[in-house]
Amino acid sequence: MLNKVTIIGVGLIGGSFAKALKRHELAKEVCGFGRNQANLERGIELNVIDRYTLDPQIACQNAELILLAVPVGAMEATLRQIQPFIEPNTILTDAGSSKMSVLEAVENVFGALPENFVAGHPIAGKEQSGVEAASSILYENHRVILTPTQNTNQNALSEVNRIWTAIGAIVSEMSPEHHDEVLAATSHLPHLLAFGLVDLLSEHNELGDVFQYTAGGFRDFTRIASSDAVMWRDIALNNKQAIIKWLKNYQSVLSQMSTMLETDDEAALHQLFSNAKQARDTHILKINRPEHEITAKKNK
Amino acid sequence: MLNKVTIIGVGLIGGSFAKALKRHELAKEVCGFGRNQANLERGIELNVIDRYTLDPQIACQNAELILLAVPVGAMEATLRQIQPFIEPNTILTDAGSSKMSVLEAVENVFGALPENFVAGHPIAGKEQSGVEAASSILYENHRVILTPTQNTNQNALSEVNRIWTAIGAIVSEMSPEHHDEVLAATSHLPHLLAFGLVDLLSEHNELGDVFQYTAGGFRDFTRIASSDAVMWRDIALNNKQAIIKWLKNYQSVLSQMSTMLETDDEAALHQLFSNAKQARDTHILKINRPEHEITAKKNK
Repeated sequence: MLNKVTIIGVGLIGGSFAKALKRHELAKEVCGFGRNQANLERGIELNVIDRYTLDPQIACQNAELILLAVPVGAMEATLRQIQPFIEPNTILTDAGSSKMSVLEAVENVFGALPENFVAGHPIAGKEQSGVEAASSILYENHRVILTPTQNTNQNALSEVNRIWTAIGAIVSEMSPEHHDEVLAATSHLPHLLAFGLVDLLSEHNELGDVFQYTAGGFRDFTRIASSDAVMWRDIALNNKQAIIKWLKNYQSVLSQMSTMLETDDEAALHQLFSNAKQARDTHILKINRPEHEITAKKNK
Repeated sequence: MLNKVTIIGVGLIGGSFAKALKRHELAKEVCGFGRNQANLERGIELNVIDRYTLDPQIACQNAELILLAVPVGAMEATLRQIQPFIEPNTILTDAGSSKMSVLEAVENVFGALPENFVAGHPIAGKEQSGVEAASSILYENHRVILTPTQNTNQNALSEVNRIWTAIGAIVSEMSPEHHDEVLAATSHLPHLLAFGLVDLLSEHNELGDVFQYTAGGFRDFTRIASSDAVMWRDIALNNKQAIIKWLKNYQSVLSQMSTMLETDDEAALHQLFSNAKQARDTHILKINRPEHEITAKKNK
């Protein structure tokens, strides 16, 4: 059991980690740190954190583990605030959606990657954000990717792995470069695609109000376009190289489909649609099927 | 109350129409016609239809209304089978997902559009297909678009409108061209985009099995990629002009986003994401929100 864990940024991600630590009795004291006092007060009321401080020195003092759970766009500025006060034995980890940019921010602030810094990314979230939405079971059966480097201390890495595992997450390790590629392809790209489609339809007045003619398929396809615009602007810019690459790969697929349509290539279209259906039915439905998809009679 | 309604193609769409007619006591007899006897037998067992025939002449005899509910790729061949037996007072309507191609098939078979032909499209469906999935409430509160032409008899149009309305649908009328544009943009394009993304990820071995790192956002975004590949091949080819146009429009949006990333254009990215979020939150969540989206705590 840890004596003191500090959560920097007590929102959905940080708050859910805090609640899970308390639920599993993994920390004697969970301290919140942030710049919004009302939010931290709410964290106390909701029993998400045990106490809070607005002083970075007090936040870092005697902390065995510090979780950085601020948006990736705020990482470097936050690191600058706490860097002078981090103690040599404190393990520092984060929950940012892109890893190369976080490592760069840490290097910029610390000069080099501290051996007790363990970069991480829990692949979990909700449409709702903020401490009110925090849940002690958010990470259960969800992937957490840790991206150690050559500098990373093995004990620090094991300890961060142990804690995520203890709150129910499935921990994987990979290089930060590979993480950023995988997330660009599976998460960042789909978000951009959904934002882009809704934007396209809302801007084309020639169609009139087309949204009234949409059904369940469109609603689900565009659900992620209801995500927070500032957060996604920052994620997009912080992983732009990988996202641009996967956008280009995707544009090639769209161009191929256009050609298949233009040339009435029935066989190629059928092959592409069949491959996709089979891949999704095999990989997604079986490993990751929510109750509502099994039970609900949903509309296309 | 109609004396005899014939459903050509007793699957999800035709079967649900049949069940709704019976539920609302709109037809004395619902007759099924198709080429798969076992399927029609199942329709009888499930009380979807009252009787069936494999003979197109018997199917058409004394029918006041005939609904063509076969895949768009099978429309013309099916029309050829029944054309000799359609009686002058019978109203013929359909449920195809593209309308220009259906009108063309009707013209090819009949020489000109019969005045009692009313083209229509119920915007409803499920992942599941076939008569087993038929539901008497599939169309409740769902849009049905009718696309009359100058040839269309007003009484036939009113009658088809009356029946869809009586089973709970919300009926709109528009030109077939406009229908095809609207559906290309809101339904056909998103299906292609989802198929394309899953295909891209399943083909890129450099990423390994990336599907294991996906969560709820990806699952919902790609749900429509689990749709039937043959049906979607046919829809895509039957509305290819409009789909190609909207694919090109969409490719432009993606290129713009690429440029925004390359140039670190924070303001433009934020504007695009915000517009999209606002449009979706305004138009989709309010008019078309399923219970599971309101209650379920879903993952990104």
